[in-house]
Amino acid sequence: MTNLPDTMFAVVQTHDGYSGTATGPTLETASDWLAEAEVPLPSPGPGQVLIQLRTASVNPSDIHFIKGEYGQPRVKGTAAGFEGCGDVVATGAGAEALQGQRVAFVAAGAGAWAEYVVAQAQMCIPLRPDISDEDGAAQIVNPLTAMAMVDIARDVGDAFVVSAATSQLGKLMCSLGRDLGLKPIALVRRADTVDTLISLGAAEVLVTGDPDAARQFADISANLKPRVFLDAVADQLSEQIFCAMPNGARWVCYGKLSSELPKLTQMGQLIFMSKQIEGFWLTRWMMETPPADQLRVVAEVQARFADGRWKTDISERLTLRDVVQGLADALKKSDGKVIITP
Amino acid sequence: MTNLPDTMFAVVQTHDGYSGTATGPTLETASDWLAEAEVPLPSPGPGQVLIQLRTASVNPSDIHFIKGEYGQPRVKGTAAGFEGCGDVVATGAGAEALQGQRVAFVAAGAGAWAEYVVAQAQMCIPLRPDISDEDGAAQIVNPLTAMAMVDIARDVGDAFVVSAATSQLGKLMCSLGRDLGLKPIALVRRADTVDTLISLGAAEVLVTGDPDAARQFADISANLKPRVFLDAVADQLSEQIFCAMPNGARWVCYGKLSSELPKLTQMGQLIFMSKQIEGFWLTRWMMETPPADQLRVVAEVQARFADGRWKTDISERLTLRDVVQGLADALKKSDGKVIITP
Repeated sequence: MTNLPDTMFAVVQTHDGYSGTATGPTLETASDWLAEAEVPLPSPGPGQVLIQLRTASVNPSDIHFIKGEYGQPRVKGTAAGFEGCGDVVATGAGAEALQGQRVAFVAAGAGAWAEYVVAQAQMCIPLRPDISDEDGAAQIVNPLTAMAMVDIARDVGDAFVVSAATSQLGKLMCSLGRDLGLKPIALVRRADTVDTLISLGAAEVLVTGDPDAARQFADISANLKPRVFLDAVADQLSEQIFCAMPNGARWVCYGKLSSELPKLTQMGQLIFMSKQIEGFWLTRWMMETPPADQLRVVAEVQARFADGRWKTDISERLTLRDVVQGLADALKKSDGKVIITP
Repeated sequence: MTNLPDTMFAVVQTHDGYSGTATGPTLETASDWLAEAEVPLPSPGPGQVLIQLRTASVNPSDIHFIKGEYGQPRVKGTAAGFEGCGDVVATGAGAEALQGQRVAFVAAGAGAWAEYVVAQAQMCIPLRPDISDEDGAAQIVNPLTAMAMVDIARDVGDAFVVSAATSQLGKLMCSLGRDLGLKPIALVRRADTVDTLISLGAAEVLVTGDPDAARQFADISANLKPRVFLDAVADQLSEQIFCAMPNGARWVCYGKLSSELPKLTQMGQLIFMSKQIEGFWLTRWMMETPPADQLRVVAEVQARFADGRWKTDISERLTLRDVVQGLADALKKSDGKVIITP
């Protein structure tokens, strides 16, 4: 660890634990939750690496986490941010093979919005040289989730439903579904995004604000028979969508963009139609999926970014020192990702 | 089919299809839904048998069905009733082996509340001579459901939760759980049933009307770590129970005694705690479970009734000609089954 500083600049959390609220992944003022700090350089333990940051991304899960509304407790004073890309500059026992490599990573403990980050070696993916640092910043959370969830859909039929389809993850799933010969049914809020989704690969696009949306979906469902609903919204319309799906449908919730608490209006469908409601969490997928299968998926992800089938749409770039001041405004621009650089 | 009459007495449904309501398995006046009729004797098709009724039982699912609130549509003019016991007096092609046998059955098409009933041969179970006609009337729906659902619980831990635990099915599951070395946690409405449930095999009993019930359950859950919730109620307290269960918990809904529509207050638990919500339907279990496994379960059920470990608590006996007049009052007596005889 020669030539490394003793301290680093980081965007740190100002609260501990959970907030007990459920207000969704939006920020009024980042300074309610985050502060700038000069903190000691973290040190990699066994099986861990220290990464000098090149780029970090901002995912909805980061905002849930910052606000104490994610499934893991905050630790006050530690850096925010789950995902990024950088160079391995020090390694703990057993992680030496990654020394010097440029990797995409998901942070462990202290977060990615800092000049240096500690990550578990198995949460690091060495990057091909033809992947840019900006694509590298969003190489794991969304792309692996897309691959894993579309796999769930592919196992049970050829049509599937994607909510919040204009999100980065939604777009990845629509294009991946199309490339695999499946029929993605995209749910979007704004009618002006319909053409984009069709060109990306959606077989059908439904505008959720349309008062007739539930009936329209019933027609689409009767026609295409989607068996899997990959849902990041989880509001009452989500429940109606699920109820309009055929026998054996699975409502796979991977996010909670809406703060509405959906009512279960048709419990009988769980009984008589073999429907079920479940969740998807990438961390669990990475823990439970055999390494060989993960490597195959990772290689496919990088190939898709390298040849341009997938790309990261960027709405705003912020330096670490701009985050507390500028993040709330940056997030207001839709249809792209905020990228953070040192 | 010599010596068989051309017509028979039956208690028939007076409505078609579904009602679109969800009012639960109670009856104000049976004549709103049922009528007495002399109808043509049904004829068994291929793979079917004709049964002369000895006894039929009244399950909550019968009441749901009569009211058009079950997962299958009614057919006006056909007999009500799913389950009973009787003698096979005629057989269709392929079902000859059952001729002359006394069987427990689940009816197909026309129902069990009639002097004669048609059933699929694979929905008939020949009865040991030491099983009484009254136990035979309730040999399939509750006992097989109990066996199958406790199997689900046993696969994932040693504690499980049973709602509506004073129902026949609830009592079967508590005693079966205890006999298998498991720890049933019983939910009951009335405090005066706690001792009965403890003596039947419940490790813990929670009175759902207690304003402190959710907190009490949280303590029980932290202690016993139940992973499966076998739920016939599906109200908001059910959802709270599910939310207080540990990682990996499964809410298995097999009934809808409450007309309340539960809100999902903790979608994040599906994501981060691998929880899921699903249904159980005996008909599907019978279609999907290999015959050898079903035979093993059926043999165990009969052994339990024959040696007295299980018995059918009877609250009232009605003849077919008393049903329209007397069923509503008979159902008001709790903690036992109504048995119908010709």
